[in-house]
Amino acid sequence: MNPTHNTSHPPASAEGPGSPQRRQLLLGGAGLAATAGLAGLAPRAWAQAAELPEYVGWKDAQALIMHSANTLETRRDAIGRGILTPSDQLFVRNNLSAPDSAIMASPDDWSLDILGTTRSQRFTLGQLKTLGVETVVSVLQCSGNGRKFFPHGASGTQWETGAAGCVAWTGVPLRELVRELGGVMEGMNYITGTGGETLPDGLDPKSIMVERSVPLAALEQALLAWEMNDEPLSLAHGGPLRLVIPGYFGVNNVKYLRQLAFTREQTDAKIQASGYRVRDLGVEGAPDQPSMWEMPVKSWITSPLQSAVAGRTLIYGVAFGGVHALSKVEVSVDGGERWAEARLLGPDLGRFAWRPFVLAAELATGEYRLVSRATDDQGQVQPRDRVDNERGYGHNGWQDHGVTLTVA
Amino acid sequence: MNPTHNTSHPPASAEGPGSPQRRQLLLGGAGLAATAGLAGLAPRAWAQAAELPEYVGWKDAQALIMHSANTLETRRDAIGRGILTPSDQLFVRNNLSAPDSAIMASPDDWSLDILGTTRSQRFTLGQLKTLGVETVVSVLQCSGNGRKFFPHGASGTQWETGAAGCVAWTGVPLRELVRELGGVMEGMNYITGTGGETLPDGLDPKSIMVERSVPLAALEQALLAWEMNDEPLSLAHGGPLRLVIPGYFGVNNVKYLRQLAFTREQTDAKIQASGYRVRDLGVEGAPDQPSMWEMPVKSWITSPLQSAVAGRTLIYGVAFGGVHALSKVEVSVDGGERWAEARLLGPDLGRFAWRPFVLAAELATGEYRLVSRATDDQGQVQPRDRVDNERGYGHNGWQDHGVTLTVA
Repeated sequence: MNPTHNTSHPPASAEGPGSPQRRQLLLGGAGLAATAGLAGLAPRAWAQAAELPEYVGWKDAQALIMHSANTLETRRDAIGRGILTPSDQLFVRNNLSAPDSAIMASPDDWSLDILGTTRSQRFTLGQLKTLGVETVVSVLQCSGNGRKFFPHGASGTQWETGAAGCVAWTGVPLRELVRELGGVMEGMNYITGTGGETLPDGLDPKSIMVERSVPLAALEQALLAWEMNDEPLSLAHGGPLRLVIPGYFGVNNVKYLRQLAFTREQTDAKIQASGYRVRDLGVEGAPDQPSMWEMPVKSWITSPLQSAVAGRTLIYGVAFGGVHALSKVEVSVDGGERWAEARLLGPDLGRFAWRPFVLAAELATGEYRLVSRATDDQGQVQPRDRVDNERGYGHNGWQDHGVTLTVA
Repeated sequence: MNPTHNTSHPPASAEGPGSPQRRQLLLGGAGLAATAGLAGLAPRAWAQAAELPEYVGWKDAQALIMHSANTLETRRDAIGRGILTPSDQLFVRNNLSAPDSAIMASPDDWSLDILGTTRSQRFTLGQLKTLGVETVVSVLQCSGNGRKFFPHGASGTQWETGAAGCVAWTGVPLRELVRELGGVMEGMNYITGTGGETLPDGLDPKSIMVERSVPLAALEQALLAWEMNDEPLSLAHGGPLRLVIPGYFGVNNVKYLRQLAFTREQTDAKIQASGYRVRDLGVEGAPDQPSMWEMPVKSWITSPLQSAVAGRTLIYGVAFGGVHALSKVEVSVDGGERWAEARLLGPDLGRFAWRPFVLAAELATGEYRLVSRATDDQGQVQPRDRVDNERGYGHNGWQDHGVTLTVA
């Protein structure tokens, strides 16, 4: 439990749909006294990460669950009502170990090859930084976020809700780089990014390398990013340079980007060809199955997660539309029988960002099932049920993401 | 110099006014290679503040200039292109020493008296948290920001540009609290907040206490805030509870808020009656002079500040409209002879927030004078000249805020 996030939730309130003041809300009377906490002088300072691996040693250990050295999850009660996720609380998921930290000594010397454009070119990061700049806020979410809720025991990290965060990326828009190079060569259908990890000896590189292809349509929003949350992109999150595809699952956001190619076909690297494919239980991965590309609409409750005092209970969560903008979020305290629209908090950071939400409910003593359900601006509603699949990908079913609350 | 902010500026680019893509820009060709830096593994971790006073010991010492124990300025090159200012880089200005940190042990027990409403009431912070919540992003700026540029040597901290930052506040809207209490009593014209600092013995409390009045109109946006940047409000910044008046100068945002009264007259505390008054040189402060309330439109360059390599030079800064929304920013490299409209970066965080901006210019070897000029949505343009005044308040003249650049 992270005391910076669990002891000082600003309680919230009920609203009627269609309220003119979306960013503001009020309860009819005083209710639940917020749990007293130990919020101290230095909100960020107490979290020194004793047991975290060196490359993430600067992270807030109290906000994280360490599944392995390469998989760190943000605690559900640490993902708060924030419009942005602090870098030191953001989840980490590396398919391979991070490169040696020496690559961060001189980030502007990092080189990237661009292929599949009318002119091919090698750029240093220093050069890329002169070509253009954009800041985009987007949700970063692992394909396996929610895997823990699959009853068949999908293999892989047992993420609950915390393989996700919302961050600001700064870099050069890929489409502008392409324009510089005379456009994409005819017949190219995919954007294929290759990571710069050191590959283990003795293995077929294709079996292990991080190389991902996404449809060319993603050129609209793709970014070559060198900053996250207004700081140089850290090694843990793919620095010096990362391919960011806002609205797409995390795996497509290739770290330590060494090559960016426009290609006729998808890469035949295993991580693309058979990995990150949605298929029925017991079925092997194959290129004809859906790939983990665009993220669907999703939401979950972040507070309260277990217990509350009878009276007005204030329910918080986060919601996003994935590749589309969020339209609304509803909350139910009876497992989905009746729904009330929640309020969105704070400014809208754009189509790919998440929105914190809040709703208040008067709850008598008893047990409640809190669930939330988001709708995107295409009218797509977060489904009740998960789609069972071998590897437990893409879970956005609201029922499994609910929490059981004991009100005393 | 703060290496996290000076070594990895994503260079930017020129634009024509009226461009349809305000958040994105591109240069025609590669130019200035960004200065290679030492951006490390842990963007925030290397800044351990050895010499900072204990109550701000968690701050990033490398981003700050310590004028005194109660006045810490953010370095001009540390105020970056960020949409939000990280809490550990935000300036500090306390009129009195911060209260004992013991008040942070149990923040929800902090009490606040509300007076001048149909019903008066004492609330604990725990109770306030149940009454409503809103998140507002706003610029926090000291009245004396820019004082260093007054040639008459105005007394007080010699702030340059860094007594300002842009942060997200979370708390209950004051207007909603007032509604709960039956409205403001008739005839009340001001919102008067009283801080909870311990006053030194042997002095007239009125001569030293922090008690400020602002016009009742500020009720529209006033917030009783318990969070800053999604974390519990720290002692250094007024925790457990602070009055926030978005769009108003810092002094009106009373820390350690103990009493909030709607009053017929302004308080006669010295900080209001004669302090923070704009008057001619040599004149004593008095209640009939303008008080430091609403902030005017302002901007300044943040990079480059001294030198650049010949070729395309990328100019960054921040701009805000104060109590009004920002409309546009222009940049000149010849001290204000010719202007070009800059691009605003990242999402708009609302009327009271600042916007980072960027513009590129082709510069040959020589000396240049870089200045920026913002316009708010009321058409008010940042003036060229300062308004000389005894205490050096409210400087938003663009000429003094310019920087001389040597291009080699």
